[in-house]
Amino acid sequence: MTSDTEDTAPHLRFDWDRRARTAVAEAVYCEGKTHAHLLTVLSQAKARAESLFLTRLARDQFEAITAHHDLDYCELSRTAIFGSPQRNAPAPAEVALVCAGTSDMRVLKEAQRTLEFNGLSTKVYADVGVAGLWRLLSVAEELSRFRVIIAVAGMEGALFSVLAGLVPGLVIAVPASIGYGTSANGSAALTSALSSCAPGVVVVNIDNGFGAAAAAIKLLHADNAQTRA
Amino acid sequence: MTSDTEDTAPHLRFDWDRRARTAVAEAVYCEGKTHAHLLTVLSQAKARAESLFLTRLARDQFEAITAHHDLDYCELSRTAIFGSPQRNAPAPAEVALVCAGTSDMRVLKEAQRTLEFNGLSTKVYADVGVAGLWRLLSVAEELSRFRVIIAVAGMEGALFSVLAGLVPGLVIAVPASIGYGTSANGSAALTSALSSCAPGVVVVNIDNGFGAAAAAIKLLHADNAQTRA
Amino acid sequence: MTSDTEDTAPHLRFDWDRRARTAVAEAVYCEGKTHAHLLTVLSQAKARAESLFLTRLARDQFEAITAHHDLDYCELSRTAIFGSPQRNAPAPAEVALVCAGTSDMRVLKEAQRTLEFNGLSTKVYADVGVAGLWRLLSVAEELSRFRVIIAVAGMEGALFSVLAGLVPGLVIAVPASIGYGTSANGSAALTSALSSCAPGVVVVNIDNGFGAAAAAIKLLHADNAQTRA
Amino acid sequence: MTSDTEDTAPHLRFDWDRRARTAVAEAVYCEGKTHAHLLTVLSQAKARAESLFLTRLARDQFEAITAHHDLDYCELSRTAIFGSPQRNAPAPAEVALVCAGTSDMRVLKEAQRTLEFNGLSTKVYADVGVAGLWRLLSVAEELSRFRVIIAVAGMEGALFSVLAGLVPGLVIAVPASIGYGTSANGSAALTSALSSCAPGVVVVNIDNGFGAAAAAIKLLHADNAQTRA
Amino acid sequence: MTSDTEDTAPHLRFDWDRRARTAVAEAVYCEGKTHAHLLTVLSQAKARAESLFLTRLARDQFEAITAHHDLDYCELSRTAIFGSPQRNAPAPAEVALVCAGTSDMRVLKEAQRTLEFNGLSTKVYADVGVAGLWRLLSVAEELSRFRVIIAVAGMEGALFSVLAGLVPGLVIAVPASIGYGTSANGSAALTSALSSCAPGVVVVNIDNGFGAAAAAIKLLHADNAQTRA
Amino acid sequence: MTSDTEDTAPHLRFDWDRRARTAVAEAVYCEGKTHAHLLTVLSQAKARAESLFLTRLARDQFEAITAHHDLDYCELSRTAIFGSPQRNAPAPAEVALVCAGTSDMRVLKEAQRTLEFNGLSTKVYADVGVAGLWRLLSVAEELSRFRVIIAVAGMEGALFSVLAGLVPGLVIAVPASIGYGTSANGSAALTSALSSCAPGVVVVNIDNGFGAAAAAIKLLHADNAQTRA
Amino acid sequence: MTSDTEDTAPHLRFDWDRRARTAVAEAVYCEGKTHAHLLTVLSQAKARAESLFLTRLARDQFEAITAHHDLDYCELSRTAIFGSPQRNAPAPAEVALVCAGTSDMRVLKEAQRTLEFNGLSTKVYADVGVAGLWRLLSVAEELSRFRVIIAVAGMEGALFSVLAGLVPGLVIAVPASIGYGTSANGSAALTSALSSCAPGVVVVNIDNGFGAAAAAIKLLHADNAQTRA
Amino acid sequence: MTSDTEDTAPHLRFDWDRRARTAVAEAVYCEGKTHAHLLTVLSQAKARAESLFLTRLARDQFEAITAHHDLDYCELSRTAIFGSPQRNAPAPAEVALVCAGTSDMRVLKEAQRTLEFNGLSTKVYADVGVAGLWRLLSVAEELSRFRVIIAVAGMEGALFSVLAGLVPGLVIAVPASIGYGTSANGSAALTSALSSCAPGVVVVNIDNGFGAAAAAIKLLHADNAQTRA
Repeated sequence: MTSDTEDTAPHLRFDWDRRARTAVAEAVYCEGKTHAHLLTVLSQAKARAESLFLTRLARDQFEAITAHHDLDYCELSRTAIFGSPQRNAPAPAEVALVCAGTSDMRVLKEAQRTLEFNGLSTKVYADVGVAGLWRLLSVAEELSRFRVIIAVAGMEGALFSVLAGLVPGLVIAVPASIGYGTSANGSAALTSALSSCAPGVVVVNIDNGFGAAAAAIKLLHADNAQTRA
Repeated sequence: MTSDTEDTAPHLRFDWDRRARTAVAEAVYCEGKTHAHLLTVLSQAKARAESLFLTRLARDQFEAITAHHDLDYCELSRTAIFGSPQRNAPAPAEVALVCAGTSDMRVLKEAQRTLEFNGLSTKVYADVGVAGLWRLLSVAEELSRFRVIIAVAGMEGALFSVLAGLVPGLVIAVPASIGYGTSANGSAALTSALSSCAPGVVVVNIDNGFGAAAAAIKLLHADNAQTRA
Repeated sequence: MTSDTEDTAPHLRFDWDRRARTAVAEAVYCEGKTHAHLLTVLSQAKARAESLFLTRLARDQFEAITAHHDLDYCELSRTAIFGSPQRNAPAPAEVALVCAGTSDMRVLKEAQRTLEFNGLSTKVYADVGVAGLWRLLSVAEELSRFRVIIAVAGMEGALFSVLAGLVPGLVIAVPASIGYGTSANGSAALTSALSSCAPGVVVVNIDNGFGAAAAAIKLLHADNAQTRA
Repeated sequence: MTSDTEDTAPHLRFDWDRRARTAVAEAVYCEGKTHAHLLTVLSQAKARAESLFLTRLARDQFEAITAHHDLDYCELSRTAIFGSPQRNAPAPAEVALVCAGTSDMRVLKEAQRTLEFNGLSTKVYADVGVAGLWRLLSVAEELSRFRVIIAVAGMEGALFSVLAGLVPGLVIAVPASIGYGTSANGSAALTSALSSCAPGVVVVNIDNGFGAAAAAIKLLHADNAQTRA
Repeated sequence: MTSDTEDTAPHLRFDWDRRARTAVAEAVYCEGKTHAHLLTVLSQAKARAESLFLTRLARDQFEAITAHHDLDYCELSRTAIFGSPQRNAPAPAEVALVCAGTSDMRVLKEAQRTLEFNGLSTKVYADVGVAGLWRLLSVAEELSRFRVIIAVAGMEGALFSVLAGLVPGLVIAVPASIGYGTSANGSAALTSALSSCAPGVVVVNIDNGFGAAAAAIKLLHADNAQTRA
Repeated sequence: MTSDTEDTAPHLRFDWDRRARTAVAEAVYCEGKTHAHLLTVLSQAKARAESLFLTRLARDQFEAITAHHDLDYCELSRTAIFGSPQRNAPAPAEVALVCAGTSDMRVLKEAQRTLEFNGLSTKVYADVGVAGLWRLLSVAEELSRFRVIIAVAGMEGALFSVLAGLVPGLVIAVPASIGYGTSANGSAALTSALSSCAPGVVVVNIDNGFGAAAAAIKLLHADNAQTRA
Repeated sequence: MTSDTEDTAPHLRFDWDRRARTAVAEAVYCEGKTHAHLLTVLSQAKARAESLFLTRLARDQFEAITAHHDLDYCELSRTAIFGSPQRNAPAPAEVALVCAGTSDMRVLKEAQRTLEFNGLSTKVYADVGVAGLWRLLSVAEELSRFRVIIAVAGMEGALFSVLAGLVPGLVIAVPASIGYGTSANGSAALTSALSSCAPGVVVVNIDNGFGAAAAAIKLLHADNAQTRA
Repeated sequence: MTSDTEDTAPHLRFDWDRRARTAVAEAVYCEGKTHAHLLTVLSQAKARAESLFLTRLARDQFEAITAHHDLDYCELSRTAIFGSPQRNAPAPAEVALVCAGTSDMRVLKEAQRTLEFNGLSTKVYADVGVAGLWRLLSVAEELSRFRVIIAVAGMEGALFSVLAGLVPGLVIAVPASIGYGTSANGSAALTSALSSCAPGVVVVNIDNGFGAAAAAIKLLHADNAQTRA
């Protein structure tokens, strides 16, 4: 005999007003959630005609819910969009997304999709790791025009310090869990970002592309609010 | 016989143009520097008629150099200002400074003096730790008006998440080395800040009030530049 | 040739008198136990007409023994009950069970089933994480009526401090292994709980819903004993 | 020139109502506080005719403020009482205080004075470490009569598990920073307490005698409230 | 095209004289070894008519080599014996093997088979964890007759200290990787063993039943040598 | 609906001139790269008629690309060579490769193939761990003739210190992730190498056979350049 | 007003029968004990005409008690003997004491004095670190005659493995807190000892010369008992 | 009564032949050594007419021995030279010494004096941290001419990767214990160096300027030997 373990869905208290209060709409962090939880959330969103952003959605979770709800799923970043984005992203790009190597793209992509769901436009500068410094220097001037730069790097994370020493915009560092031995799980990149000798680097959790994007949204939301006022 | 160990001063390569390039003027991190180093830097600044900001200046270092150069020294934050600040700080306050307990004031003060040296005005909200939630709630509305909030907390650092869930501005979390046992050296507050369940918290190194201020300067510098343009 | 590795069952020394001595009946921690061990324990229980509580029972272990013994299995919490609970749980609820997010339900459920097996009644307050503080505040008054509150949270575990600052009852914090990077494996929530700025939070091991429930049983057992006396 | 660094006292937001709300009066954690902060708090207490409990008060801090305010100071536990305790402690003792070795007495004493300041009576069972098991066994029956036992141990902290396996009362484990090498700073005792094989051990931070006492107060406060009702 | 990666076997330099030099015959640690390596070692042993002891032999490794060589395999301890043991184990038992719970049996078994392969006799005392102290006390007198006791425990490892405080023989502590959260991977038991308040506990690596047995062999080999002389 | 997640390949900025600048040709670190990334890199190499070295290439990655490009793959070391090596490796051997046990061969092999791809000749001395010191001593004189020795060891990594105390050449230590408990993941060998009491040991990351080889190439490249000049 | 904090001495429960029970007399670990505690213990010993061994006795503690009691104090090892040793140490030496460098002598000395207080004779082999292997090899044959060897080493602790590979006696490894960076506090030597590739190394806590000696006493006590019987 | 604790000097086994065997003369690591030890070593050196290099010599140690022996002491690097260097250092410089900030000079100086004592000439490039990249780029061409570059950096250690990506010579990374929070004690710089994305960086222990120099000596000794041959 097996108890019904799926009676937890009624306990959901979704924070539909978060966007009004904090500038960033609540997103659904899917790790550890049962299929029943996810289906309940999506049904509530549909009933309220809200669009929704899902992070850390594993392929098997996606497959379990895609039969009932239509989702725009990106496997590389494990994100999904239900409904339509918040507004049309304007040109020119508002946030620069920089990464050290192509292995960092899955994290960068999580940030990019979060930003675009929230109506911000982006431009990607990939594979500009410092072991070949000419790659970063060749885009330094272009990067200097951005107010906010989200930088993703694993290994030793030297990119964060070098970049912040070159540009006036805020650098939001996202350590990536790329590497092995002393850099396994992104810990070396994390301590590197926090210990940066270049002033003005701020940091989010390892692989937290969503969090970096949320910070950028908080900043640029205020600007847009100001501009519209 | 003792070798002359002070022949290192000629090696200095001060980055006088950093402010133009990165929005934040280079500051002198004084920990581990000999008195000779510090005197050389100050003499160079005097010769170029530059003002200068010094961090982590221990009392004995201050005393060794104050005979030769006039400094505005704050012992609580171990910062000193040589010369005059960059511009007059405007009203109303541009950056909110929040701390959980009065023991965090030394870190908050480092941020405050960095901001004011760079011409930004501040307002302090102290002793609003979450163990007595009414303290934070009583200033929440006021805090909602700021684009950037620097929050300082030690112990378990719960302030960061609660604050970020209440306001639309960017929360820059500064873990403070307040506590003992599992929170000794600020490590618990640091992991708390990085692991925050509230999206949009960004983090700097433990006790790094200067770094948090530098990030705020990078952000608001762009605004001011835009405004002037 | 393979040796018989299952000759270990005779070594079992089950502590059938633990409940009389320590208020909490011994439970079987199933991780790392062979199917033969588990079958031996259950046979002994059946022979003595004892009911039994099993924790960390993986699905494949459950399946291996369910052919021989009838169990009430809950897959979410990986617990099973053999035989019947200790006494009928009275109304009103004696212990409040609080969790930050729905991903914490598997740990909360382990606590709940432990309590109910030992004859204590519970009430669940789920999804009251501090990123949306209104959710917790809306139930704060109700929570103030409980002598013991078991709180489950992963990520940065800010819930523990905020809750303990709001209510007079004892808060037993159960860090949950929810999160990634710096909060992977529940370590951030654990240090948060131990470092809490709110006095009177006590802590058990990560994911140890059973241990939290055992502590509550020890407390309320004494009360009931007193009441009956 | 030195700035006035003592302008932080006005920022104090003391939580005078905490006792009504959470059963434990706010205490002043003195580490990292300036003399000016401490004097301000004491003056406010005097003005409101409140008594006050101070923890982690270093001898030099005590000496700086004792000239202005009369304090009952205990150097071993670094605690001080300003004014008079909350109520007369009744007999018989309500909380048992157990420690493994005499080096743990400074932590035990912090718990004892916290309890007594809050009107609870205590009994001490010292030097009952498990290396000489007869010492603990000789008091086991006596300890079985207590609803709450605060146990302090450093080194490997084996006391916690053995004690919890012997008595029905709740064991609040306080790891002590006694030891060297792998047990330096109390980390071995902490992980031991959290990993205890005996169900129903709850844990507070290393050396946190105050926190253990606060938990006991929360529990027994409810009892007393119930009794009085 | 795939290179021949199995050209490494010729590099083997097996230490056939180790037993004469250090009292313990070299055993083959199989983790990370390719099937080709293992087959080469066994062929060399067969050619020299040596018997051999293999540790950490995974089931798939066993299956790959059992077609070519006859082995006595124990899956619980992942050990195998090739050929016959060193001498007949005498009665009475020379080494006591103690473990806290039945989950520790796989480690205890590795020690037992190592001892028996080297001609030492053993007696097992299982499931005597300290949470039910009567279990250990009931065999304490019997254990006092052994010169060497190998004790295996996971979780918080309190068994080591309690045991060493009760008996005059040497206690060799083997921390076991049983547990979760703070005791995951045996780290809590390891620090507990090293930090023991009971003098005379010596420690080997986590799960290293083989190493504990090797130490016992070194000790008792000398005795036997002495006795025979 | 699933987004096209493979649009990242255009972002590649391959550093084809690295060899001219730093003496070591850029290699492709394949962990975390999608099949599309790998195919793009190989196509670019083919178009430029460049040969290429790939590290950490998992078998499934190899299989996905081997249909399109011809590779010399070594499964033990997870390396692949595309095209032909840089020059013919001369005799006698220029670099000695030493390892403690046969389990270390996969790391040694990564170093060996990197060296040979870059035109350096090698000689392997395997299975010379210090537990049987005669094995190392028997080759010590031969090893003394090498300018550079790459040594691979897991467990406690004692080989590094013993070797460096015996020979005049530079010892490049590569800790290997061989072991369990305290040596799991190679951390014990790493700290051992860094803490060596024998002066002149230099260290690379755990399992980084490629990095050790790259260092040797940097050194011997200069020699060869000098010789040719 | 300062409370009398020295009322803790009455709590002492000294384990005078430990030697009969566990072969090793209880010693007084002095770290963290107040002068009053120490004086009470010594007075009790004097009253019972017991001799006593004190460890970790700081110079200021020694000076505070030497006025009242006559002690044989060794500053290097911070040990003191009160009264006379247990029996005359016989020749030839029963335990070999080996250390890697002269900085390890303070730990070796703690072991030596513990052994001699308990009536065992010793011989010291100092400064035989493996960086100059000839030093250890020159005494290897002599060391092969000992049943028990206590080895002390800091830094990377390679001595333990090399020694255990050379001799048949039991090697008790004592990691010493010698070194800096990755070997600071003896952690590298500790993990090295536990991860040793040479079977039969057993380990005690960092700097725990006393514990190593206690283990040797337990072993040789049994022998002597046997011999006498 | 105090025992003579200084009887340890006779135990010294100085490795006077190390230079012939390993290319680097043995140096005296002074941390933890008593004054008596140091005086004995110096007397032995004087008697053999050997010059000697001392590292980690604290000022109080220097003062205790300078009365008896003439030393060239450098307080910044805590090194001393007894007698005269090995040979005259030739021009041009053979080793480049690079450091990120002036706080790193104490470590760089230890390397420099070790090299010069062993007859190698050096050139210093100080204060070239990557936060102001122009500083490093302005000397990159000059650095490209060196076969060996010793680089010292604290904080996040980004210098190592950037430098190794620019020059063909071997980069020996020396993490410096500069920084606070996550970079305290040099741990961030260490993991950064080991995790470097630029191939060919080799690493020594934190603050180990001596070890980096020893590695350079091993390399260039071979060259010089070759050149002379």
